[in-house]
Amino acid sequence: MSPRKANIERLATFSDGVFAVIITIMVLDLRPPEHPTFASLLPLWPTALSYLVSYLFIAIVWTNHHHLLRFADESTPRLIWINFAHLFTVSLVPFATAWVASTRIAAVPVFLYAAVFVLVELAYLQFEHHALTQAEVEEISPRTRRLAWIRSLVALGLFLTAMFVSFEFPRCSFALVCCAVLLYLVPEPPVPPGESTDSVSLKTV
Amino acid sequence: MSPRKANIERLATFSDGVFAVIITIMVLDLRPPEHPTFASLLPLWPTALSYLVSYLFIAIVWTNHHHLLRFADESTPRLIWINFAHLFTVSLVPFATAWVASTRIAAVPVFLYAAVFVLVELAYLQFEHHALTQAEVEEISPRTRRLAWIRSLVALGLFLTAMFVSFEFPRCSFALVCCAVLLYLVPEPPVPPGESTDSVSLKTV
Amino acid sequence: MSPRKANIERLATFSDGVFAVIITIMVLDLRPPEHPTFASLLPLWPTALSYLVSYLFIAIVWTNHHHLLRFADESTPRLIWINFAHLFTVSLVPFATAWVASTRIAAVPVFLYAAVFVLVELAYLQFEHHALTQAEVEEISPRTRRLAWIRSLVALGLFLTAMFVSFEFPRCSFALVCCAVLLYLVPEPPVPPGESTDSVSLKTV
Amino acid sequence: MSPRKANIERLATFSDGVFAVIITIMVLDLRPPEHPTFASLLPLWPTALSYLVSYLFIAIVWTNHHHLLRFADESTPRLIWINFAHLFTVSLVPFATAWVASTRIAAVPVFLYAAVFVLVELAYLQFEHHALTQAEVEEISPRTRRLAWIRSLVALGLFLTAMFVSFEFPRCSFALVCCAVLLYLVPEPPVPPGESTDSVSLKTV
Repeated sequence: MSPRKANIERLATFSDGVFAVIITIMVLDLRPPEHPTFASLLPLWPTALSYLVSYLFIAIVWTNHHHLLRFADESTPRLIWINFAHLFTVSLVPFATAWVASTRIAAVPVFLYAAVFVLVELAYLQFEHHALTQAEVEEISPRTRRLAWIRSLVALGLFLTAMFVSFEFPRCSFALVCCAVLLYLVPEPPVPPGESTDSVSLKTV
Repeated sequence: MSPRKANIERLATFSDGVFAVIITIMVLDLRPPEHPTFASLLPLWPTALSYLVSYLFIAIVWTNHHHLLRFADESTPRLIWINFAHLFTVSLVPFATAWVASTRIAAVPVFLYAAVFVLVELAYLQFEHHALTQAEVEEISPRTRRLAWIRSLVALGLFLTAMFVSFEFPRCSFALVCCAVLLYLVPEPPVPPGESTDSVSLKTV
Repeated sequence: MSPRKANIERLATFSDGVFAVIITIMVLDLRPPEHPTFASLLPLWPTALSYLVSYLFIAIVWTNHHHLLRFADESTPRLIWINFAHLFTVSLVPFATAWVASTRIAAVPVFLYAAVFVLVELAYLQFEHHALTQAEVEEISPRTRRLAWIRSLVALGLFLTAMFVSFEFPRCSFALVCCAVLLYLVPEPPVPPGESTDSVSLKTV
Repeated sequence: MSPRKANIERLATFSDGVFAVIITIMVLDLRPPEHPTFASLLPLWPTALSYLVSYLFIAIVWTNHHHLLRFADESTPRLIWINFAHLFTVSLVPFATAWVASTRIAAVPVFLYAAVFVLVELAYLQFEHHALTQAEVEEISPRTRRLAWIRSLVALGLFLTAMFVSFEFPRCSFALVCCAVLLYLVPEPPVPPGESTDSVSLKTV
């Protein structure tokens, strides 16, 4: 193991620590109710739901972070700072989710929610660009790179649209954000049949 | 160290971070009492006891997670998501335990407690299946696989029974859950004498 | 890297996560005062002092944990469970320290404090025994093993004495606990001159 | 992988865990407001701003910690304890930052803030000295060592000045602290043109 290799691993270890704290922050708010009845569980649903949604979305972000970091093998100062920016924006997701849930999808919280995801996406775009630049040409086909790029721009567009729509139609705006996040459910954009070799080469890297 | 190997290690590092936060969440609720007397410690016993039980149970889950992950050597998207589902269900254990303790084993909290363990077990079943599928045939004997499978089904059955029994006999239901968790105290199901070779091959993997 | 080696590393990673949470728990209680004056900082001193003491003592425990784990190279089920017991007892240190500080070293809190350290020491004794058993004979000289053993017994004796003395002389009892912990400031017991070879062999392992 | 190598890695893993907790502590204070209006977000700005500043400064500290630890390859007892001292001082940054923000840069909080950074810098100086001593001569040129040393002394001077100026000009004092921290934005002091070979050799270590 060369020291250079250890570097990127320490970046991953630190990021995993931050992700582990962020993803579990909201469970701290799940406090057992006083009375042992189902009725007393009811007031907890916004907290429970926002924990579930925020957990799911941060899990999606981690999956993509994990996928991309496989292609980077040097923790350059630039990559370190882009990663810090990315983690910072992600750390705002639980707060924004909690506000949306506690206000039952009101306009201003949804606006903030979409704005947080615009920031997450902007940092992710830089992160993706930087990690893929370090990857060798034969690891990722031009088509895969193009698809990744298009998906990122589409997601950014959806988040921006959600921001502008939020004041009129907060629920539509919230649905838009969810759809855009779900675009990332599979880290690697699907490859049309006939190019499966490329996909395989990626998987075994 | 191949990049593929590093993958499964990052999954383990992230899971360990989440486990470390979850297992220590309840100690945050142990607040020093105001007065320096034994009497003022008394109101803390439900918190202390539920910290102990939740710590023990999450330790058992970690031990099995640790044991199974040794057999997986590729962090496939499927394994990553099953792992996220598993960690999510485990993260609800401290909350459910605290409610059971603070209500002194009342019916509804025990019902929720058993339900959380049904979810934990369902996610664990998938995790176990997926990790053991990746293991090579000679690493785990068919008998060991069968025993693991039977234990999981027995535990699931006990958790489900506990759910249905909770409204009538909450204390029995709670005891059932504890028994089912203790089935996992040793990650690997015991192997009858005469098959010790198999057990040794597992231990040295 | 063999899977067996990876095992002990995952035990270390998980333990480090738990230590990282435990050692920083008390800083969560350091809340900025309302008024921007030195006087308003004063009520924080018990919290600040107990954070410092608890940080120092947990740092000493980590140093010894780190030192001993170098000698173990297999994470046997026994070692895993002793480690869980050790981490559990350590996780009670911040709570006990906070109670001692907030009650200005009153009798009952000091009794609890000494009792927690008795538990920490009992778990540590097992941990030390198990880790050193795995170490090869040439790594640790019989004299070093004997010194480690004697130190552990002396510390246990001091903690027990502190427990029994606490009701009469809480401040003496507290001082006894501190002295016993400071015995571990250097993980390896000092080796008398003339045996320096042994010490070197340990350092380079 | 030799056990000695594993040692420094465990020090890094533990430090990363502590950094991950410290850097995200302040986001716990970001609580969603009750009403879904922009006006209700306003009272959160001191918390949000101090989270941002404290995140940025701790990120800078991590970057330098990460950079220096590459040169150390043995976790000596001395390095372990200097690292603990360093982490302890860093763990006070969120508290001090929050006080400065909530009092809108009042004199006493800024004094404490500068004092915390004096402690951080003193521990960092030891850490830097110890890590660079372990580095081989050809890894770091004498010029780079000298520049690192000068920067540390300049930063220490600025932090001390900020302490003494804080009672008269709290805002200037706060600006001084920020400037001194930003000196570390790039872990390695810039190398004048003509010595680029040295810089390259460092980057590829």
